[in-house]
Amino acid sequence: MKLVTASWMEIDSYLTQSKSILIPIGSIEQHGPNGLLGTDALCPEIIAGEAESLTPMLIGPTFSVGCAQHHLGFAGTITLRPSTMIQSLVDWVASLRRHGFERLYFLNGHGGNVATIQAAFAEIYAGISFSAEPPAPLELKLQNWWQLPGVAELCREIYPQGDGMHATASEVAVTYAAYPQAQKQVSMSPRIAPTGRISHAHAYRERFADGRIGSDPAQASVEAGEKIIARAAESLVREYASFDSGQVER
Amino acid sequence: MKLVTASWMEIDSYLTQSKSILIPIGSIEQHGPNGLLGTDALCPEIIAGEAESLTPMLIGPTFSVGCAQHHLGFAGTITLRPSTMIQSLVDWVASLRRHGFERLYFLNGHGGNVATIQAAFAEIYAGISFSAEPPAPLELKLQNWWQLPGVAELCREIYPQGDGMHATASEVAVTYAAYPQAQKQVSMSPRIAPTGRISHAHAYRERFADGRIGSDPAQASVEAGEKIIARAAESLVREYASFDSGQVER
Amino acid sequence: MKLVTASWMEIDSYLTQSKSILIPIGSIEQHGPNGLLGTDALCPEIIAGEAESLTPMLIGPTFSVGCAQHHLGFAGTITLRPSTMIQSLVDWVASLRRHGFERLYFLNGHGGNVATIQAAFAEIYAGISFSAEPPAPLELKLQNWWQLPGVAELCREIYPQGDGMHATASEVAVTYAAYPQAQKQVSMSPRIAPTGRISHAHAYRERFADGRIGSDPAQASVEAGEKIIARAAESLVREYASFDSGQVER
Amino acid sequence: MKLVTASWMEIDSYLTQSKSILIPIGSIEQHGPNGLLGTDALCPEIIAGEAESLTPMLIGPTFSVGCAQHHLGFAGTITLRPSTMIQSLVDWVASLRRHGFERLYFLNGHGGNVATIQAAFAEIYAGISFSAEPPAPLELKLQNWWQLPGVAELCREIYPQGDGMHATASEVAVTYAAYPQAQKQVSMSPRIAPTGRISHAHAYRERFADGRIGSDPAQASVEAGEKIIARAAESLVREYASFDSGQVER
Amino acid sequence: MKLVTASWMEIDSYLTQSKSILIPIGSIEQHGPNGLLGTDALCPEIIAGEAESLTPMLIGPTFSVGCAQHHLGFAGTITLRPSTMIQSLVDWVASLRRHGFERLYFLNGHGGNVATIQAAFAEIYAGISFSAEPPAPLELKLQNWWQLPGVAELCREIYPQGDGMHATASEVAVTYAAYPQAQKQVSMSPRIAPTGRISHAHAYRERFADGRIGSDPAQASVEAGEKIIARAAESLVREYASFDSGQVER
Amino acid sequence: MKLVTASWMEIDSYLTQSKSILIPIGSIEQHGPNGLLGTDALCPEIIAGEAESLTPMLIGPTFSVGCAQHHLGFAGTITLRPSTMIQSLVDWVASLRRHGFERLYFLNGHGGNVATIQAAFAEIYAGISFSAEPPAPLELKLQNWWQLPGVAELCREIYPQGDGMHATASEVAVTYAAYPQAQKQVSMSPRIAPTGRISHAHAYRERFADGRIGSDPAQASVEAGEKIIARAAESLVREYASFDSGQVER
Ligand code: NI
Ligand code: NI
Ligand code: NI
Ligand code: NI
Ligand code: NI
Ligand code: NI
Repeated sequence: MKLVTASWMEIDSYLTQSKSILIPIGSIEQHGPNGLLGTDALCPEIIAGEAESLTPMLIGPTFSVGCAQHHLGFAGTITLRPSTMIQSLVDWVASLRRHGFERLYFLNGHGGNVATIQAAFAEIYAGISFSAEPPAPLELKLQNWWQLPGVAELCREIYPQGDGMHATASEVAVTYAAYPQAQKQVSMSPRIAPTGRISHAHAYRERFADGRIGSDPAQASVEAGEKIIARAAESLVREYASFDSGQVER
Repeated sequence: MKLVTASWMEIDSYLTQSKSILIPIGSIEQHGPNGLLGTDALCPEIIAGEAESLTPMLIGPTFSVGCAQHHLGFAGTITLRPSTMIQSLVDWVASLRRHGFERLYFLNGHGGNVATIQAAFAEIYAGISFSAEPPAPLELKLQNWWQLPGVAELCREIYPQGDGMHATASEVAVTYAAYPQAQKQVSMSPRIAPTGRISHAHAYRERFADGRIGSDPAQASVEAGEKIIARAAESLVREYASFDSGQVER
Repeated sequence: MKLVTASWMEIDSYLTQSKSILIPIGSIEQHGPNGLLGTDALCPEIIAGEAESLTPMLIGPTFSVGCAQHHLGFAGTITLRPSTMIQSLVDWVASLRRHGFERLYFLNGHGGNVATIQAAFAEIYAGISFSAEPPAPLELKLQNWWQLPGVAELCREIYPQGDGMHATASEVAVTYAAYPQAQKQVSMSPRIAPTGRISHAHAYRERFADGRIGSDPAQASVEAGEKIIARAAESLVREYASFDSGQVER
Repeated sequence: MKLVTASWMEIDSYLTQSKSILIPIGSIEQHGPNGLLGTDALCPEIIAGEAESLTPMLIGPTFSVGCAQHHLGFAGTITLRPSTMIQSLVDWVASLRRHGFERLYFLNGHGGNVATIQAAFAEIYAGISFSAEPPAPLELKLQNWWQLPGVAELCREIYPQGDGMHATASEVAVTYAAYPQAQKQVSMSPRIAPTGRISHAHAYRERFADGRIGSDPAQASVEAGEKIIARAAESLVREYASFDSGQVER
Repeated sequence: MKLVTASWMEIDSYLTQSKSILIPIGSIEQHGPNGLLGTDALCPEIIAGEAESLTPMLIGPTFSVGCAQHHLGFAGTITLRPSTMIQSLVDWVASLRRHGFERLYFLNGHGGNVATIQAAFAEIYAGISFSAEPPAPLELKLQNWWQLPGVAELCREIYPQGDGMHATASEVAVTYAAYPQAQKQVSMSPRIAPTGRISHAHAYRERFADGRIGSDPAQASVEAGEKIIARAAESLVREYASFDSGQVER
Repeated sequence: MKLVTASWMEIDSYLTQSKSILIPIGSIEQHGPNGLLGTDALCPEIIAGEAESLTPMLIGPTFSVGCAQHHLGFAGTITLRPSTMIQSLVDWVASLRRHGFERLYFLNGHGGNVATIQAAFAEIYAGISFSAEPPAPLELKLQNWWQLPGVAELCREIYPQGDGMHATASEVAVTYAAYPQAQKQVSMSPRIAPTGRISHAHAYRERFADGRIGSDPAQASVEAGEKIIARAAESLVREYASFDSGQVER
């Protein structure tokens, strides 16, 4: 079930059976010459959607704009300051707890979000920890889709070279599979982009002229994307089932 | 063009021709027994999408979670505090200005957002107004989709009774047209919901037992939704063209 | 009774009979060549004072500096950022609730405050709505003095032309009636100021050279002001009595 | 000249001759059984008004609600959190600097404001100090009216006993002189209130049962108030003249 | 006992006997040509450490970076904005209250901190005062080390001339006694620095060319420092014992 | 050179040769029955101090209180909320940039700080990235002392079993080497603490009864600590030299 197309009565009924929800979380930022600005929001949304077609689970709305300050040198990028993102996540979690949700699984599509999401978790937990009163149950989990068991292996198999670190062949492939009409043919040079350290937008643009880091996303194809989506969705189904049932891995 | 499926190079190229962008903005909140939680985010997204199929324009990502504190008594509702929403909009606008955008048109789907969006505009403008330096050009416009010229007339024609104020027959119809598989058959009583004043979530739930205000959304149909979408999209095309060309109405 | 000149014991005693308070709220901002910088704070203060002379009611201190960023191009204007105004109103309301006040009626003198006051109400209500605990009773009401029943009709009657939108003949007249020594004779050209869209201070000054919008405030007179004050005060007495007695209009 | 009843053109003209402004700043808080809730805002407003009748100077609007958390146990008290007051003062000063004001003299009526006003000054200065760019001139000065040269001596002379620390005979007298109709006859016991340490509102109410600290304000009279106002106004005229002329005392 | 080198079990055990803690609080800021940047943090830390060697007491970690915006014109100075310092102190106090601490004694080393620490106290108390619920006991006390009974007298005796206001001979001597290897020989001219008003960093550097105010710290010596430390520590032992035992002075 | 015991003139002179500074950053939080509350602040301070004794470098003051909300169930723990820590780091970095520092190396002692420090870096960079103006050079680097090249290998060699994840044998050993008088003999059971997931303080205390995670810190000794300090300091000297010289590793 997708929260966005459900009614409140359907969510009420769902909550009698499960206190869990999956929230795709991403970013709107440049993904090189042939990648989509929405890649990092779309990938977890696509994979979660596929998983939900395999097994009953509740998918929340996508938290689509995240931490992308380093990409602001490239048109179309939209970012929250980390402090704004923390306050936003505080509000999302407070809203969902109000209804009785106890287990929130954030499926993330953007490496640059990880620190701020974890800081937001700590901000939320701090609100609980400052109080001596025992709280309502709460488990917050962050998982990056490319770290779901089995996914990285498949990506390396498909793209032994040039999968890269940003605007990766894999993530572009995932979006091409879901939005084939959005495929773009752009010649890129060098074929595999340079790698380096990330800081602010001015330095980023200087180091990574077309936005890519270490990748050759010209390799991206609908077929590869479909394989990755299938693998990630299966893996997510298993991991989320365990999360939903209250098993907490380290 | 949709920003989410465009590349940064495509946006760069677009900016040589226009400095305008349309951003759908809504809310994730209960919409009565047969309405979708995402109604207010989906309606402007659907209408903007239809408009963009008629004429070249740039549609940004949807700002989907807004001000819905009064609906927190119903499961699935997610809200930002107004102060968080203001900071988020400050960041969105700062990001887009960084790329050279000068004219931002927010197509809104939620009456409860209006005050906070206008407060956010004032917050952004204040940053400019405190400085004696003349700023880069900036025009921020808010329009509610149901106030696009010609739309209210059509809705009254289709639903002479019970269109209502919240969980309206019209908005439910718009979402049904775009997501026909999300239609819900729920019997509601009374047929037309009561009306009243909105304050916090506890009072809201007491006054409006199933979430609707003044509406009979059982009347919603795919056919009606299609008509409303068509009318709103045509109207939007005209209004946005005028906005894009720099004509500023009062 | 005016809170500012009352003692805490008098307020304590008042609270055994009523949980309501009226708070004038305005702005310190340019009001054209012959209008007072304090116009928007003085008007609700004057009208509330007149009403209080007619019937027992409690008038709080005036919240005098509001949202006036767009007027910063004219000397003497003082503004809060909307985010600051929201936090200030949060604190005022928290203070008054601490004493047992349950019904707060804000009589507003400045159109530019409306959005931010409503956003502040939502911020306050959100604090209540996030909690599952039922709150102490709270009703927050915003009314603009020029929208009190019967006032607009009178103003149109007195000023069939050039009452305008900012630095209106009516509001200048109200202040002249209360502060006759502050009347100013300034020739203005054109007689009726232009109208247009409001954004930031730089654009405002360009569009509205002397600060007025659509008005001919040279028409303002003590006599007209007295009539408007009388009408507004009578209307306020009736509306506030209904508010105080717990009747909640839509 | 009072800013509130001046026009922007009058302020524009004033700024060609002086870059200084005096801002009365106070608090709305209990002042014992016979003192006014507005005492701390009214006193500097009254004294500044008297000074302005003696010599040309510019009086800004009164910053009336300040830091009064410790008085929240007594009805009618309204407070800002210190963090809110800091942001408010940041905005006031930014507004006034926008117009070219360079020298701001805050005449304070409330001891509990002193720390937060000074912290606000440091917050404002920090915005300047973090930058390597030399700023526009800015001098911020805080003076408590009861510390104007010659005032304490007079108060001790008039009230050799029981002037006190809060709800003092002197401050009540000042308000009685300006608002004689607001005088209150209340028997207080003990005649001179106890003294002690101030912390939060719960402890305050326990320690100071009727709100007074160390004072016998039953001694307050219109005549005494008139003398204090006269002395304070003369003293202020001298000190402000020196401030306005750019002499900076240590 | 020093909290930093204690275990949580030792603190747990300590709390069965006392609910008090002493927190040294200072600043990292220029202290003239021969003074240490850490002077204001080190002085209270040194004196508290000496006191703790005389009698059992609990010393918390040093709050070392405070309000030093006015010194930013001199290399090495680090400051918090007052608003940041307030939030930090809010968090420190909330943490300590969580464990059952009820009496917090801040031994301060920097005059520029005083206002912001007091504003922070008011911010913390406000959180308590807005609630009608009686709070857990809390006493917050601020003492400047140079105002401990008997200290100023000794300093005047040792340095009849040129102890000064900033980068004082006394404070430099205290740090020299504890960090003799950090002594610096620098010729300063004039021998006694000028005095004047403090505002922002640009004005400060202009007025006080080498950073000192009114002082001749070339007089500082290890011997003098040892005497001051001894006197201050003895005085602190007495004052803190009284604080710990719950006696509250005015 | 240590900034805390240096003068501003010494820092001024240093800045003509290097724009780099190392800042130890840690936490004040429980470290099990025999570990010090200050462990995470002391370890980087100790290691940096040792490195500075080997080669000229500048060590800033220790940022000692960090993100420790999960340890609030154990007495003595002090935490900042992540949002407060971000603002504090924003201020520290703004202060240091004011003096011309361009390269800041944070040597971290607490895993729970990592996310928030990275979020703070992004907050700082965002301030730069929103502007189209090229910034002054800035490189921010975070390194955990236990991840300095060669350190983990040594720790595993010394503690093949039970080094653990929190209150590790290694970190306790480092503090014992520097503060031998703070060694504590406490019997712990089980010998090796359990492992598990970290969330808020209530869950933490339930899962980890004496505070340790996965560790047997009874193994800690001065000798082991000395070895680890020596290895870490040598490694830091090399890594920092490379950082200082402007080489940026990925
Ligand atoms: Ni990506
Ligand atoms: Ni709706
Ligand atoms: Ni007006
Ligand atoms: Ni007073
Ligand atoms: Ni000092
Ligand atoms: Ni540790």
